[in-house]
Amino acid sequence: MTYAFDKLDEEKVFKDPVHRYIHVRERLIWELIGTAEFQRLRRIRQLGTTYLTFHGAEHSRFSHSLGVYEITRRIIDVFEDHPDWEDGERLLCLCAALLHDVGHGPFSHSFEKVFNTDHEAYTQAIILGDTEINHVLKKVSADFPEKVADVIGKTYKNKLIISMISSQIDADRMDYLLRDAYYTGVSYGHFDLERIWRVMRPRDDQVVIKYSGMHAVEDYIMSRYQMYWQVYFHPVTRSAEVILRKILHRAKSLYHNGYAFRYPPGLLVPLFKESMTLSEYVRLDESVILYYFQVWQEEEDPILSDLCRRFTNRRLFKYVEFTPSNYQIYADLREAFKEAGLDPDYYLVVDSSSDLPYDFYRPGEEGERLPIHLLMPDNSLKELSRESDVVEAISGKKRTDHKLYYPADFIHDLTTHRSAKERIQSLLQ
Amino acid sequence: MTYAFDKLDEEKVFKDPVHRYIHVRERLIWELIGTAEFQRLRRIRQLGTTYLTFHGAEHSRFSHSLGVYEITRRIIDVFEDHPDWEDGERLLCLCAALLHDVGHGPFSHSFEKVFNTDHEAYTQAIILGDTEINHVLKKVSADFPEKVADVIGKTYKNKLIISMISSQIDADRMDYLLRDAYYTGVSYGHFDLERIWRVMRPRDDQVVIKYSGMHAVEDYIMSRYQMYWQVYFHPVTRSAEVILRKILHRAKSLYHNGYAFRYPPGLLVPLFKESMTLSEYVRLDESVILYYFQVWQEEEDPILSDLCRRFTNRRLFKYVEFTPSNYQIYADLREAFKEAGLDPDYYLVVDSSSDLPYDFYRPGEEGERLPIHLLMPDNSLKELSRESDVVEAISGKKRTDHKLYYPADFIHDLTTHRSAKERIQSLLQ
Amino acid sequence: MTYAFDKLDEEKVFKDPVHRYIHVRERLIWELIGTAEFQRLRRIRQLGTTYLTFHGAEHSRFSHSLGVYEITRRIIDVFEDHPDWEDGERLLCLCAALLHDVGHGPFSHSFEKVFNTDHEAYTQAIILGDTEINHVLKKVSADFPEKVADVIGKTYKNKLIISMISSQIDADRMDYLLRDAYYTGVSYGHFDLERIWRVMRPRDDQVVIKYSGMHAVEDYIMSRYQMYWQVYFHPVTRSAEVILRKILHRAKSLYHNGYAFRYPPGLLVPLFKESMTLSEYVRLDESVILYYFQVWQEEEDPILSDLCRRFTNRRLFKYVEFTPSNYQIYADLREAFKEAGLDPDYYLVVDSSSDLPYDFYRPGEEGERLPIHLLMPDNSLKELSRESDVVEAISGKKRTDHKLYYPADFIHDLTTHRSAKERIQSLLQ
Amino acid sequence: MTYAFDKLDEEKVFKDPVHRYIHVRERLIWELIGTAEFQRLRRIRQLGTTYLTFHGAEHSRFSHSLGVYEITRRIIDVFEDHPDWEDGERLLCLCAALLHDVGHGPFSHSFEKVFNTDHEAYTQAIILGDTEINHVLKKVSADFPEKVADVIGKTYKNKLIISMISSQIDADRMDYLLRDAYYTGVSYGHFDLERIWRVMRPRDDQVVIKYSGMHAVEDYIMSRYQMYWQVYFHPVTRSAEVILRKILHRAKSLYHNGYAFRYPPGLLVPLFKESMTLSEYVRLDESVILYYFQVWQEEEDPILSDLCRRFTNRRLFKYVEFTPSNYQIYADLREAFKEAGLDPDYYLVVDSSSDLPYDFYRPGEEGERLPIHLLMPDNSLKELSRESDVVEAISGKKRTDHKLYYPADFIHDLTTHRSAKERIQSLLQ
Repeated sequence: MTYAFDKLDEEKVFKDPVHRYIHVRERLIWELIGTAEFQRLRRIRQLGTTYLTFHGAEHSRFSHSLGVYEITRRIIDVFEDHPDWEDGERLLCLCAALLHDVGHGPFSHSFEKVFNTDHEAYTQAIILGDTEINHVLKKVSADFPEKVADVIGKTYKNKLIISMISSQIDADRMDYLLRDAYYTGVSYGHFDLERIWRVMRPRDDQVVIKYSGMHAVEDYIMSRYQMYWQVYFHPVTRSAEVILRKILHRAKSLYHNGYAFRYPPGLLVPLFKESMTLSEYVRLDESVILYYFQVWQEEEDPILSDLCRRFTNRRLFKYVEFTPSNYQIYADLREAFKEAGLDPDYYLVVDSSSDLPYDFYRPGEEGERLPIHLLMPDNSLKELSRESDVVEAISGKKRTDHKLYYPADFIHDLTTHRSAKERIQSLLQ
Repeated sequence: MTYAFDKLDEEKVFKDPVHRYIHVRERLIWELIGTAEFQRLRRIRQLGTTYLTFHGAEHSRFSHSLGVYEITRRIIDVFEDHPDWEDGERLLCLCAALLHDVGHGPFSHSFEKVFNTDHEAYTQAIILGDTEINHVLKKVSADFPEKVADVIGKTYKNKLIISMISSQIDADRMDYLLRDAYYTGVSYGHFDLERIWRVMRPRDDQVVIKYSGMHAVEDYIMSRYQMYWQVYFHPVTRSAEVILRKILHRAKSLYHNGYAFRYPPGLLVPLFKESMTLSEYVRLDESVILYYFQVWQEEEDPILSDLCRRFTNRRLFKYVEFTPSNYQIYADLREAFKEAGLDPDYYLVVDSSSDLPYDFYRPGEEGERLPIHLLMPDNSLKELSRESDVVEAISGKKRTDHKLYYPADFIHDLTTHRSAKERIQSLLQ
Repeated sequence: MTYAFDKLDEEKVFKDPVHRYIHVRERLIWELIGTAEFQRLRRIRQLGTTYLTFHGAEHSRFSHSLGVYEITRRIIDVFEDHPDWEDGERLLCLCAALLHDVGHGPFSHSFEKVFNTDHEAYTQAIILGDTEINHVLKKVSADFPEKVADVIGKTYKNKLIISMISSQIDADRMDYLLRDAYYTGVSYGHFDLERIWRVMRPRDDQVVIKYSGMHAVEDYIMSRYQMYWQVYFHPVTRSAEVILRKILHRAKSLYHNGYAFRYPPGLLVPLFKESMTLSEYVRLDESVILYYFQVWQEEEDPILSDLCRRFTNRRLFKYVEFTPSNYQIYADLREAFKEAGLDPDYYLVVDSSSDLPYDFYRPGEEGERLPIHLLMPDNSLKELSRESDVVEAISGKKRTDHKLYYPADFIHDLTTHRSAKERIQSLLQ
Repeated sequence: MTYAFDKLDEEKVFKDPVHRYIHVRERLIWELIGTAEFQRLRRIRQLGTTYLTFHGAEHSRFSHSLGVYEITRRIIDVFEDHPDWEDGERLLCLCAALLHDVGHGPFSHSFEKVFNTDHEAYTQAIILGDTEINHVLKKVSADFPEKVADVIGKTYKNKLIISMISSQIDADRMDYLLRDAYYTGVSYGHFDLERIWRVMRPRDDQVVIKYSGMHAVEDYIMSRYQMYWQVYFHPVTRSAEVILRKILHRAKSLYHNGYAFRYPPGLLVPLFKESMTLSEYVRLDESVILYYFQVWQEEEDPILSDLCRRFTNRRLFKYVEFTPSNYQIYADLREAFKEAGLDPDYYLVVDSSSDLPYDFYRPGEEGERLPIHLLMPDNSLKELSRESDVVEAISGKKRTDHKLYYPADFIHDLTTHRSAKERIQSLLQ
């Protein structure tokens, strides 16, 4: 028997609060989980700074990745009566599910904005590079790592497999909605996962949903909508993200200006230089970042130490709604901040979030926004929003939210710059 | 109005998966939660290395501390019809509940064994020393910090208040059983919290349980029993703890021997010297520790780097049952390990766990093991195990488990020391 | 102390799967629950024939009524900081909540259609007539029953109290959504009840919702929408209802035509005569009805016995979609049924369901469809659908569904009327 | 293909709150569920009079029977890797699981005590007699009904199959513990069903439990223990049962004494005569019984009408603890009751409950108390209580509880028999 189909002597199970148990039967999957690069995901939180808003949201990308694997495994089990996959495509699908997030770094979204990194590129690099994961995958065949990377990069020939990992109703989204709801404790985010995986059907190059499962999908879309605005884009979480980004900006800028760090940035230097190797990248995790923030509280640079204290001790920025068209207020505020001795590049920050809850067609946009198709009783396909009133109602409606973040405590304590303080306070109203 | 009774303009709520919502009405509580020392608990996991066994157990002492506060608040609400507390004792109780764990360091149990620190002493030190927490508590009155420290130290005059924070059925234990069950996902650990808090009654110097609630308490005792052996003393978790302790031992020993660290231990030096100040202590958290473990993988010392790789990448020790009376086997194994070039001080470790699920009387032992009393219909008190068959059955029965941990992979790979390998393998059977 | 405020020596609790515990402190409430008329609700299912579709839906109006009482009690507890109610209005509200469904008969909706009864009129009659409930209520004061009846009839002067019992987001709807979801096991129907009751505020003549609770209300509206179409209007449930109505029609018609029942309808005669007294009404419950259906399986009348066998043994009618505008098909089918020897009055039935998920203004319609108002941060009120995209999307959109029910087994077995059979089958496609 | 293995075109699912979904793939199972005898279980409550104590416990034996089928199906799925069953034994097992309770009558336990019926005998009679169930089973083969009856009667040759349906840890017990906990809402009764079914292994003539699942089994045993004493033997439930039995006794006695019923007992006459046919038996359900209790409230016989009013309106008997050895008190009370004009045969009733939570060996007792065996790592078997402290503690310990029931309201209202009243009250203390 080839390695690909080598079973463990005894099935391994992980106790999981969301899926009860996660089942592993293949040696390949078991060994992937044991690699250093996959274990590293234990040290990267699934929801970045959200734990500063919802204290329960302390779960890691490791847990989520196991969950995506498990949902994919269950979907495939339902499919198996209709098998038209090539030999080994089942395993390919499971590997891609398990590894789809392996390139995430600490606080990915903030890092990507500051350092122009790209976690999907790193995911592919880890799969293809000189890593433990690559060595395990190669045991299947020399070109297996490439195939896994292709699925994740959406260039694999069998589009059905891609659609299970990345579509508007894929295993990734289904796991994170349920998992994030469980750990934050919010009551949104629940939908009937078992119902959905049982009505999924492979159909040409996509997974479609049996018509009888439409309402479960409606529920899923609504969960997604609520989770985005109630949890993922929570303004307090974004305040922490704003501070985090500004710390990274400041540290990078100090580094390039030759500032003498009391605690040198060590592991972050390759990032600052934008010349990071793969092995340097996988050393980064949230412990490393939080260590620097911890010690940099004692740096002499007042902006760096202040921002690190804010993040570490959760002294976040306050916010007001901001209308981008009203640019003049922002410009005036910047002036007033400068006058008050506060650098507006660090202390007056616009942050925007926007979400498209469901879309069926986006001309000229990224290809991944494929519509969800219902498999009708007569075997035809129908795009979801044409059947569902609820989905139709929110379909294609992009919603955007802009906020202006600033340190209300500093403004409140401005004693020497009374007129600047008054101007700021009146502009912020 | 005094500060102690100063209410927030609007009640603050925290969304909590275990208690749905945690409610804060007093400014005092709100400000305590906002202190740097309390926020630090976000960076200390509630269950230490358990996340390496149960991947969901990634929750922090911050969440748990809020939970203990909330349960205490609800118990007191039931009491309020029978108020014979001095003015302010309600708040005292809430503060002690919130702060009871604030002195915990990273991976406390391991650190305490290696460095002889004591988290309860640090809890009192943080409350009484020059800290943000102390400054907030002092706003109530000059002697308020002392009172809070006395409750936690079990020397406060009103023993009733002490019994709410530390007894065999206190808010601390009730929160951690439910919370740890929720995050690990195990089905043990559930009991009817609401039932218990509704049947609690203040009675002289202790909290007693109305007889009608006996079965809910039985359930709680059984939950505790199961959680200890299924979760807290899980042998895989203990394997990770063994490695962690050995890392700390090794680093300390290297430090004292003048080893030239590539990444010097910096924040850990005061620990190695056993001369740590309070401000040095509160800088420590799990990010800091994991940072050192991450970078020490690159140290030259083979034991330190190997152990750090093991912990970081979860390459744990295997174990066999160990009977302490059979000391000769252990001595023989040590010899064989030495012969094979493996330092037994680091690679052959006995670890013991023991638990007393419930006890009603322990002559000559620590005072905290006070029995649980039932309030009978005729208003008399009866010790729990005299009424409950189930509790009687497990009462006073200490159970101990000894295991011997070792690096099975190293033994397996011993090629140059064939005879030592064979001896080790036969001794381990 | 007056009877109204007489407390029980010890609070009574009911274990409830939905609200954990239901708490009763007032003797008045306790005695109302103990009356024969209220206990009768144990023998009337909350969801009529739904248990034939969702087997778990076997719960009674008794459970639901306790639930409505409990939610109301909790809402009022939140209000109590802002008390501008007359003495005793709290109790009035609790009584109305508890008793709002007490006039329901067995399978109410079907009975009302066949016999023109009105459960709300019976609720008021039971409160005001010579009943145990009336005697208990009168102990408060001579006019107290009248007040309770006025609240239920929506004519009471304090509109705030009415809005708690009957509005688009009242204790009734909140309990039944959660409870029906719990007992059917569907995953729709969940929303954050605690969040909603905590953001409810009394405001002039209505209960309004603090703006911060808008998303919980959105979730509630969507739950309602899903429950209506997934559970309440399930076509199989409606098939059983259709048969039930036809049994009642047939029995009434046979009675008026002097048919000699083997098992005379006894307790149903006053219904057939449409001259029912209150004491005759309260003897009716679902046991009585199911008893008649059980024994009437042995009646000689073939239609009555067939329909009773169908209902009792769940041999339901099948259905096809029906477009009312296409009346000709229906007329043709009736002819074909007659030709085949099947009485279309009993065996070819159109059933329509329609729902308006949320509405803010319905000119010229029943007054109860008052909008839900949000209490904005600036203390103004805003109608919900003006703030919520999701609610706006489904607001005011009445959805109607028509189905045609018929006995597919009979059609299938038509051997002697081959041409009629073929015509029927082709018309039904 | 034979009928036995005929699959439905499309799997049917039932939404179930306990198991999420119940899956039916075989036409045989689907047709059995559709029979009149199986549908009748919808009209028989799973927990008899328990709904008068726990209002949520309104679920039927229909739901429970589906649940037992589903658990059995899942256990067999795990077994299938180790198949040494004869062809068709899988289906046999499923049929026996589904039908094991089909002979239950209304309020079975009470009826059996009064009329000496035996629900297991009726289960076999329904399977073997001229019923719809028998006709469906015969489609498999002429001797298939016999085999199903043998499994239920524990005489089938393959003891492994019997042990799945009736042992100390069978699908029956596992479903009812979880289901009764769900519907009553109590927090006891939870255990890790999935864990247990995954560690079950077929071994010779019994199902054994892999050692690694021992703690899940401990939890199950404790749940059982708590459910018995907290729910099943609840003294209020038993009060309702006492009244129910006394109604049946009275009606039977009146019938034999030629009493002229206003509402003749009709369907109950064969029971009174103890000469009931199968077709008469299956007409009985709880609607029929409750109908008689409803109308008999108007009978002239004061005992019958009083008892029926008590049951229907939940005016239950109160109780005191009773020590059987102290027989004199009981004799004295009987005398005093007679003196007071209360027939002690109906108004002074001793009721006893006893349970043996787990037993490993009962010499000379019914064979069904087979021990639970653990499958040890070395492949040997070990009886559960030898490994588990907790189980050992409660093993073999029969606990019995005796109570004396009486109408406290009648005693309280005794005005004309003052001395008897005083004697009764002093004896009852």
